Order: sequence, then C-alpha cells, then structure tokens
Amino acid sequence: MSEKLHITVSDIGEDALIKSITHQLPLDSSRVVEGSGDDCAVLKTADPEVYELQKADAIVENSHFLSGTDPELVGWKAVARAVSDIAAMGISARPVSVLITIAVAKNHLVSEINEWYAGMRRCAEKFNFSIVGGESVSLPEGSPALISVAMVGEINRADLVLRSGARVGDVIAVSGKLGGSFQSGRHLSFEPRIGFDPKLRPTAMMDLSDGLAKDLPRLARASGVGYALDFEAIPRHDGCDVKAALTDGEDYELLMTLPESPPEDSGVAVIGRITETIETPIEGGWDHFSK
Amino acid sequence: MSEKLHITVSDIGEDALIKSITHQLPLDSSRVVEGSGDDCAVLKTADPEVYELQKADAIVENSHFLSGTDPELVGWKAVARAVSDIAAMGISARPVSVLITIAVAKNHLVSEINEWYAGMRRCAEKFNFSIVGGESVSLPEGSPALISVAMVGEINRADLVLRSGARVGDVIAVSGKLGGSFQSGRHLSFEPRIGFDPKLRPTAMMDLSDGLAKDLPRLARASGVGYALDFEAIPRHDGCDVKAALTDGEDYELLMTLPESPPEDSGVAVIGRITETIETPIEGGWDHFSK
Repeated sequence: MSEKLHITVSDIGEDALIKSITHQLPLDSSRVVEGSGDDCAVLKTADPEVYELQKADAIVENSHFLSGTDPELVGWKAVARAVSDIAAMGISARPVSVLITIAVAKNHLVSEINEWYAGMRRCAEKFNFSIVGGESVSLPEGSPALISVAMVGEINRADLVLRSGARVGDVIAVSGKLGGSFQSGRHLSFEPRIGFDPKLRPTAMMDLSDGLAKDLPRLARASGVGYALDFEAIPRHDGCDVKAALTDGEDYELLMTLPESPPEDSGVAVIGRITETIETPIEGGWDHFSK
Repeated sequence: MSEKLHITVSDIGEDALIKSITHQLPLDSSRVVEGSGDDCAVLKTADPEVYELQKADAIVENSHFLSGTDPELVGWKAVARAVSDIAAMGISARPVSVLITIAVAKNHLVSEINEWYAGMRRCAEKFNFSIVGGESVSLPEGSPALISVAMVGEINRADLVLRSGARVGDVIAVSGKLGGSFQSGRHLSFEPRIGFDPKLRPTAMMDLSDGLAKDLPRLARASGVGYALDFEAIPRHDGCDVKAALTDGEDYELLMTLPESPPEDSGVAVIGRITETIETPIEGGWDHFSK
C-alpha cells in the first residue's frame, strides 16, 4: 500500500493513468452517450437527430512545438488537433465552438500570444467554428507555455462512429500517408479530415495522433478484437520507413475499420484486417509520460 | 512597432491581454449569443427555451493552491470554480458535463492525481454533472501542476443574466460575506451558488473570483455605467477589514445589480448603487499577470 503511494505517472504511462483516473466517473446516462475513451465525448441534445461532441486537448512548448516555432502555426496546431478529433467521430461531424486556456510566464511576449490567436482564427474561419472565450493563467518564469483547448461540435446521430465498433473480418484502412510529421513540419500545418468522405460506412474510427503503433491497439482494445497488419501496405511519406510510419505520431489521419474492402478511388488504403487475437504485435508511438 | 513587439503580459495585465486576444474573434451569430467577456459563453441549442453555457478555467500549483494542500480539496476547487461561473448566469443555470486536462511532471504521484479526481467526483455528484473525459500532458520536472477544466451547462433562456445589464439607479448586492478566502481555506471548500434564489430578478450578475475591487469595475465596464459603494455595508468574514473584502478575491459569491432594494429576507446585502460615473474608485484584486 505504501509502495503504491509512490507510483509516478512515468511508472505506469499515459494509458494506465487515464484508465486509473477515469475509473468510476459519474455519468448521467440520460445525457451522456459516450464518456472518456473515444476521440470525443458524445452527449444527447434537444434534437433527437443530433449529438453534441466535446473534446479537451493541450499542447506544451518543447513537447508539441519547439520554442521559436512560428507562433501562428502553433495556434493553428493547438485547435486543429481538436478539429481532427471531431472529424474522427463520423462523416457529418463538425466543430461549433472552442474555448482557449493559455498558461504562460509573466514575461511572455504579448505579440506571440496574438500570433497564436491569429492561427486559431485562421483555423476557425476555415472550419467554420467560433472562438467563444477562454482563460489565461501565469506560470513561473522559465516554464514552458501551454495551450489548452476545449472544443464543442456536433454530428448527425446516424453518422456516429466509435472506436469500439470494429468486428472480426473488417479491413483496416487509413486516409493519407503516415510518418515524419514532426521532422517535416506537417504537424504544424496539417488539415484535419473534416468532411472526409470515402463513401464508406466505417465500423470504427479514430484519428492518428500518437502513431499507428499506439493508436491501433487502442482501437482494438476498445472493440475487444485483434489485428493483422500488412506493414508494407502502410502508406508512408517520402523518406519514412515502416517504423517511422508506425511510431512517429502526429499524423492526424483517420484510422478506420470497414466491413469490406473499399473501392480503388475511395481515398483510403487498406493496411490490414481485424482478427480475433493480435497477429502482428506492434509497440512504440508517443506516450506523454514515458521515461 | 519594434517596442510593441517586446511588451510582455505583465506589462499590460490580464484584462488588457484578454481584450487584446479576444479582439475580432470569429463568432457565428446564428449560434453564439455571447462570446468571451461574461462568466460563460452562451450558445443557442435546438430547444428555443434553453441556452448552452460554456466555461474554461484553470488552476496552477502555488498560485491557486499551495503544494502539499489536500489534493481532494484541490480537485473540488478545480471544478467548483467553473460551477460558480455557471451559477452566475442565472437562477436556472446548471452544469451538465466537464472535461479535465491535467499537466504534471513525469514524476508526479499517481495517488495525488487520483485524489484530485476524488474531489472532482464529489463536486460532480453534488451538482449533478458528468465528467466526460479529458487529457493529460507532461511538464518538465519541477514545473507546477496545472488543472484545466472545460464545463458545459445550460440555462432556461428566460433566466439568462449577463454582466452588461446594469442600469443607472440599480442597487448593487452580494450573496454571502467577502474576504479572507485563501487564508481561511474557504477557497478550497466553497459551495458554488447554484440554484441561489433571492426571489429577485437581477439586471446583471457575475461571480466574485478576483475580488470586488477587480470584478465590480468589470461589471460596470460591461454595462457602461459607474458605481457608488457603501464600503461599510460590504458583508465581511470575521477578521477581515474592508480592504480584505475588496481585494482578497476567491470569494465565489454572486455580485448582482437589482432594479430595486431586495426584501430583508432575500439573502443578499445591498452594498451600493449603479451611477452614471464612478463615484467611489476602487483598485486592487487579483491579476494573474501583475508584476
């Protein structure tokens, strides 16, 4: 017991931490369709045909962006990540509003913060959502800056796709190419897959933020299934090997499972299939709290 | 111009920073009733009788709570502050759901985070809202911990009270007593004024988080009016002088303006009146970025 009290977050890693803290959370089942565990929380609205989506996310200086990075791109990234999570809930998912919380040292430059907001505004205008407020708090001098966002969106109820819907026999597919996002700068300029329409009806879907090697096992666990990957079939960005495509992270592409192989012109690539047990174990990917 | 580029957040303070960054934010007027500038953002819902409320807030170790503070109380405070902002929007305002983002060093104890969540759960059960998810990110060792919350609530449209509704001739009133919150520990255990019913119809309302000396001028600016305070009439906690009641902050009481004096048994105390110009200038209160 006393040993348990000294366990740190790096001892158990991000997924176990989240499992620990989201255990037995109070959920009002008359309102909440899905709590934590998917790309977004899902809540009922007064319109029986529409669900509300809610997503919190945060980026930290020198972890998600390097000091000296163009702050306008940092602002874009901060909110575009949440838009990507909205996109992962289904074809008609769209962002509605966002709240921004910034935590900066007292000597942080106002001009840089204004540039963050310029990037956020650009993303809001592109994807048609409102920046409705936020909060600012101070950190000790020398602390990394942090931008925390909370996005509300909505989706037509019939279009909702969760991580938990994958079934044995489904094919696994991804939009776009994977790997090299941070090194190439794509992590600062990616376009969230809002309105992505492969004319398919995915059984399960999520966005790829921590790398396929981290995210596919999450989808499989949520669905209670395994997977068999065809590693050579994973679409890779130029200069990326399979390992990079699996573990670099920050791809912001959609990972989905489909009941049958998609047509050639669908815009997604088949990379494997859902099995009963894990046939191609993978590891790596991004963990905020890895040692 | 080059001088402007070197302005820091402590040079201009919190209110000017927020004014700077919320300038010209994109707002979809078909959805957004009120953006930043009030206790909560207000959005239309599919039910014409109900508005959605959205609030982001954050607390930082050694700023909003001291290291070593009972973490269960820290968790309560983190979410109760947002509940207080919901309460400030009107009599029928109620929280629905919250997303939690924690930023901690890799060597942060899991047991402490679990205690934060125990306090958040206690608040969620008391005020009947759901904890629907969140995010965790890592900070460098030695960084203060940060808890960022995003709360969604709702209110019957007819009950909505904004900061901007005060009119010359209104009386100014507060619920409860002010001062000494941090020193006494009340900042960790306060009960948000959800369902507070003085059987009055306030013309304007906000919650007192940064101190009356900071918050009343904000309400007056939003309404385009002045104020005359009767300093001796401000209800004070034991051991607090007028200055403490004005500037200590973290009261989490409701500040409101009323078209006429409330009855004796209303549970609010009249502390002044709304005037055309400021007759009793006040200063002080909490500013995250003051030098």
